[in-house]
Amino acid sequence: MKAIAVLGGPISNWPVDIKEKIKEAQASGTMIAASDRGSLFLLELGIIPNLAVGDFDSLKKAELSKIEEKVEDIRYAKPEKNETDSEQLFLTLFEDYQVDQVDLYGATGGRLDHFFVNVLTFLNAPLHKYKSQVRMIDQQNLILFLKPGQNQLFPISTYPYLGIGNLTSVKNLNIYNAKYPLAHFSSRIPRMFSSNEFIKQNKIKVTFDEGDVIAIYSRDKDRFSNI
Amino acid sequence: MKAIAVLGGPISNWPVDIKEKIKEAQASGTMIAASDRGSLFLLELGIIPNLAVGDFDSLKKAELSKIEEKVEDIRYAKPEKNETDSEQLFLTLFEDYQVDQVDLYGATGGRLDHFFVNVLTFLNAPLHKYKSQVRMIDQQNLILFLKPGQNQLFPISTYPYLGIGNLTSVKNLNIYNAKYPLAHFSSRIPRMFSSNEFIKQNKIKVTFDEGDVIAIYSRDKDRFSNI
Repeated sequence: MKAIAVLGGPISNWPVDIKEKIKEAQASGTMIAASDRGSLFLLELGIIPNLAVGDFDSLKKAELSKIEEKVEDIRYAKPEKNETDSEQLFLTLFEDYQVDQVDLYGATGGRLDHFFVNVLTFLNAPLHKYKSQVRMIDQQNLILFLKPGQNQLFPISTYPYLGIGNLTSVKNLNIYNAKYPLAHFSSRIPRMFSSNEFIKQNKIKVTFDEGDVIAIYSRDKDRFSNI
Repeated sequence: MKAIAVLGGPISNWPVDIKEKIKEAQASGTMIAASDRGSLFLLELGIIPNLAVGDFDSLKKAELSKIEEKVEDIRYAKPEKNETDSEQLFLTLFEDYQVDQVDLYGATGGRLDHFFVNVLTFLNAPLHKYKSQVRMIDQQNLILFLKPGQNQLFPISTYPYLGIGNLTSVKNLNIYNAKYPLAHFSSRIPRMFSSNEFIKQNKIKVTFDEGDVIAIYSRDKDRFSNI
């Protein structure tokens, strides 16, 4: 089963067609989940999530009542705890619901402490083992967490740029078939190689022996602004 | 000498009072620098930067002419090179102009490959040694790069939240005098401890033995939306 998860990041960063996308996905069996304020945003779009997780401490009482009335599976997190709301949301999806893939919205923009939590949570236990099942999507970016070994990246016509970077110590990172290839890069320090491009419609191959590497498909805002 | 540097990130992320802030700063002797599209944004605000650095490949010819006509010190970067435009901008500021502190705008939002380049450039040579002289500022965040040893963080009334996180392997990270203290945290994996808060008006003390730790002061957008 696939899932879409919506966190509380600013709506201005969401893809503009998110409402239709989520409605269609839900109609065809994709599970819709949200953490905290994300649940409220969904209800405002007329979408009832199947699962809501959070301490809901940022919501007003009437807002929480609305969620409690509509959403089937609600998990209450304790306000002061080890796991963050979003961690508990992802764990519920991967472990209780055994979903195969999660498309994540509302994880970027706004408060950068939240953004770093959302990205770095997939580098740490207990979520590290699920990282390659997650895609983080906003209006201008699509982030994938790659796995050591070989990764094939397909061109996506609406995202002309590709950044490849290591967020932990990396060994023997290689980028093949790209406008800017990279060979045998190893470093203890995180680094991002941005603004790479696909050559025609060829796949880009990324390989590395060890480490946490992400791929960021991106586009400028002036281009494709109606998407 | 202090400097303000403006990169090409989306204007929607800039503090709304940036025009007045930069004009006042320039009038009182702060150097104004910009990379690529940042120069154009400044000219549109009626501000002539003292220094412009970039390959300017994202600008139209007429836009570049405008920059060449107005800006005193222009450094042309080669389009395919080892250093990024922003790296060359910072190196020019710290090494040629010997500035003591840089407030950086336009480094966040929009394309996340660019955002990661802008943050991670300060973890790598040749800019690593200057990292504690940089503040990265947008509408909701103020990022500082801390130094091993003791760091005193003062409360800033318009930013109620504080995130503390390691972006490289860290040894013995401690947070004192905060709502959520942290003791003897060591990890090879980057992690962000978000949403901490100051207790009354007390300084927060952050210490660590080794690694790259950042502090993110942040605020929600609903609050202080007129700032």
